[in-house]
Amino acid sequence: MPDTLDSARLDQLDAFLLELNRASADVILPLFRADHGLEDKAAPGVAFDPVTQADKGAEAAIRKRLSERFPEHGVIGEEYGEDRPDAEFVWVLDPIDGTRAFIAGLPLWTTLIGLRFQGRPVLGSIGQPFIGEVFVGSDRGSRLISAAGTRPLAVRACPSLEQAVIATTDPVLFRDDAQAQAWGQLRAAVRLARYGCDAYAYAMVAMGKLDLVVETGLKAWDIEAAVPVLAGAGGFVADWRGAPIGTQGGKMLLAGDRAAMEQAAEILSPAA
Amino acid sequence: MPDTLDSARLDQLDAFLLELNRASADVILPLFRADHGLEDKAAPGVAFDPVTQADKGAEAAIRKRLSERFPEHGVIGEEYGEDRPDAEFVWVLDPIDGTRAFIAGLPLWTTLIGLRFQGRPVLGSIGQPFIGEVFVGSDRGSRLISAAGTRPLAVRACPSLEQAVIATTDPVLFRDDAQAQAWGQLRAAVRLARYGCDAYAYAMVAMGKLDLVVETGLKAWDIEAAVPVLAGAGGFVADWRGAPIGTQGGKMLLAGDRAAMEQAAEILSPAA
Repeated sequence: MPDTLDSARLDQLDAFLLELNRASADVILPLFRADHGLEDKAAPGVAFDPVTQADKGAEAAIRKRLSERFPEHGVIGEEYGEDRPDAEFVWVLDPIDGTRAFIAGLPLWTTLIGLRFQGRPVLGSIGQPFIGEVFVGSDRGSRLISAAGTRPLAVRACPSLEQAVIATTDPVLFRDDAQAQAWGQLRAAVRLARYGCDAYAYAMVAMGKLDLVVETGLKAWDIEAAVPVLAGAGGFVADWRGAPIGTQGGKMLLAGDRAAMEQAAEILSPAA
Repeated sequence: MPDTLDSARLDQLDAFLLELNRASADVILPLFRADHGLEDKAAPGVAFDPVTQADKGAEAAIRKRLSERFPEHGVIGEEYGEDRPDAEFVWVLDPIDGTRAFIAGLPLWTTLIGLRFQGRPVLGSIGQPFIGEVFVGSDRGSRLISAAGTRPLAVRACPSLEQAVIATTDPVLFRDDAQAQAWGQLRAAVRLARYGCDAYAYAMVAMGKLDLVVETGLKAWDIEAAVPVLAGAGGFVADWRGAPIGTQGGKMLLAGDRAAMEQAAEILSPAA
């Protein structure tokens, strides 16, 4: 088995990744902004965690295509668990990241599909099919594919936190005092903070429009797709201490510039 | 002068409103996600209030068309102030509501254009030209115009706060303790809360995807366009006590169902 992917193989997998995005979109789009049944994953009284028919249907559609085309590949998904998680190739899926945005009709939910090769994230996409965008990345580089064509993605310089435009999904998620304090301190140090973007914000870091994203409580499928998109655009995915992360979840710091990342990690590390 | 607008006149103004949306989009879209100069309205050390070339250019383009077509109409805009604010017809403009979303590359900023007739908001639009959507409303009803065609807009029932999906732009804007406490209490009473949507959230109430939006510190141009869109879809724009508002800014409560609005107003009124 090769330790690196040759270019022809990566081409094939990249094209298949776009096919998976289309299969997922075909299931999701008719249900977006339609009246549809919602189901709570959590027991009554536990934090609200909605999951839609769209999420399940899309994951099933992706898994079906994977099993037809690459039956030897593994799959890890939010809805249907793990199959062959130790295979050489493992796809990591979250057809609707940002189910709360989806429920509220807001087109900032994304379809996250990552590919792990020998345990390392090598290819990934962040798709927003309602807007008609797919952000794709690998170590060959990252690009945005949309109706306007294909454009390369590159992070921007941000040598100092003072200049940084940052995002997080919801400050309420910083549950303990140390986390809330670290977030407050970071917010006070930067130029501008945005909320409510989920993984769409990761794509904006890769595009050079956001400088930092701070999240907590992530699962593998929340970040696996983002790692190659960020890396291919020249950015970083790290934990709150600034150490690189790849396939584990938890607390995450996503950055376009190493200098801004290190300054943020200094503020966040007491709560890491 | 007539006290009500006849249908032919409203048709003409409605068509012109769409023309203004296109003129504004033509200026804004080439600058969205491009590198462009930013300018702070506030003095150094004062809260960050970005304004882009896009915002100014679009307002100038709209004002030019207005002065050519309806030189007797008044105009109130965020960037260039007031002209004939007591005219029978007054247009109220905010070409980029959500400049912070715009700066961060997030396609949830909107173009707000409202028309006041004899002091009362009668026609308005909330446009998101990057996605290709314009939400238009008058007392004849509200509709969404997009590449997929035109669909009517209608709020949904929400008889109890427990079921409500709500939004606000940024909880940090609830500056004093009473406001922060009221927001916290409201958030705890509802099913789901979202941040970061600006006026795009108003359109989601008109579409029946959100139940309530709570904002503070608004200007006339932030809400004037929303009033007809909401009213035409069966919804309400009120202050934090639940009293209808039309052309003044300040604290706002936007709702699809009167029952949910009244329950929210009960929680918010101590901070109103």
